[in-house]
Amino acid sequence: MQEKLYEGKAKKIFATDDPDVVLQQFKDDATAFDGTKKSSITSKGTSNARISARLFRLLEENGVATHFLEQPSEDSLLTRKLDMFAVEVVVRNYAAGSIVKRLGFEEGQKFKQPMVEYFLKDDSLHDPLITCAHIEELGLVSKDELEQLKSLALKVNEVLGAFFAERGITLVDFKLEFGRDREGNIVLGDEISPDTCRFWDAETGKKLDKDRFRFDLGEVEEAYQEILGRVESD
Amino acid sequence: MQEKLYEGKAKKIFATDDPDVVLQQFKDDATAFDGTKKSSITSKGTSNARISARLFRLLEENGVATHFLEQPSEDSLLTRKLDMFAVEVVVRNYAAGSIVKRLGFEEGQKFKQPMVEYFLKDDSLHDPLITCAHIEELGLVSKDELEQLKSLALKVNEVLGAFFAERGITLVDFKLEFGRDREGNIVLGDEISPDTCRFWDAETGKKLDKDRFRFDLGEVEEAYQEILGRVESD
Repeated sequence: MQEKLYEGKAKKIFATDDPDVVLQQFKDDATAFDGTKKSSITSKGTSNARISARLFRLLEENGVATHFLEQPSEDSLLTRKLDMFAVEVVVRNYAAGSIVKRLGFEEGQKFKQPMVEYFLKDDSLHDPLITCAHIEELGLVSKDELEQLKSLALKVNEVLGAFFAERGITLVDFKLEFGRDREGNIVLGDEISPDTCRFWDAETGKKLDKDRFRFDLGEVEEAYQEILGRVESD
Repeated sequence: MQEKLYEGKAKKIFATDDPDVVLQQFKDDATAFDGTKKSSITSKGTSNARISARLFRLLEENGVATHFLEQPSEDSLLTRKLDMFAVEVVVRNYAAGSIVKRLGFEEGQKFKQPMVEYFLKDDSLHDPLITCAHIEELGLVSKDELEQLKSLALKVNEVLGAFFAERGITLVDFKLEFGRDREGNIVLGDEISPDTCRFWDAETGKKLDKDRFRFDLGEVEEAYQEILGRVESD
């Protein structure tokens, strides 16, 4: 086994023989509410790795550069090594989660247009909401790069939204993380899975994402499997 | 006495014979931390009314439209009646207060450029930080009006910053509230005082604003008087 470079809440990252390539191993560990709720979801690692692989491929086919290279095993991805931005980009089509509490939107309310939010990746500050002015002051990304992140996030929303709509799933919202590759290109990193997206069954409204774990809704493992099945269906 | 239209934490607003004009009476009541800390500061009403009158005059002289008409008594202002936006506009030159906790800036750190933030005026939501995307979604002001608010706020910052610098005071940050008059013009409303600005003595760094009340620093009344004296000096 190669050197472990990093272990996060949901993934371990290992070096490979190629300094520009890392191996991301997806864990079954689940955390929520700023790490205060911890457990494990059977086969989540495998589901999320396979879902991410399929969605990264889809995005690449649609002209979005991602860090994905290949899937060498059920629960891992080989990816390009990126220098990650300390910004999470969130796109919201419908109100759910933190924005409901923060701003009083009603859960399920459709936004007039997809809403893009930025959060500072900083555990000690609990990943606060930040504005363009904060991003500039903190020097997290340049003004030009921020415009790129926003338009990439909206492009991802279009591609994923259509893909999931065809599979009877409403893409409610999702979180993206971007970084720079060795040549300085902006590339989509992290994962795209029920851990980082909200998916609702388009017909029944049933939540098929990490909210089942957050709020003890039951059938947690089954939700991840359901998304995997629909994502891998043609 | 005319009909009381509204009583807030720091002011009462009365109708006058002219439907486009209201009387703002400044109270000595002081609240902080979302209303959880309450007390009274001797002569605050008078200080804040006089300080606001002087600063509104200064801004009018510099081309910023304000609601100020005249000061009929020590603790009150006659103002144009505005339809207020549900947005607070904050301008920060140095890090202090909520942004220190929220984003980890060091108190007193000078920002590369004046930072403009927006907050939703909603007590039940505790006046949360909002972004341009939220403002658009909530329909609080149009995109064009938001640009106007921002450039007006920066203009106010320039005028007040220079005025206070001449009087040995550092303008750390401040909060503005705007509204529309009957003709639809954007006009600066509310007050400009040690309740809504952070003022630090430029030499000693001594806080001369509501933070003395918030954090029980003593000499609260004296700080308001000190600002009044410097504001009214030529």
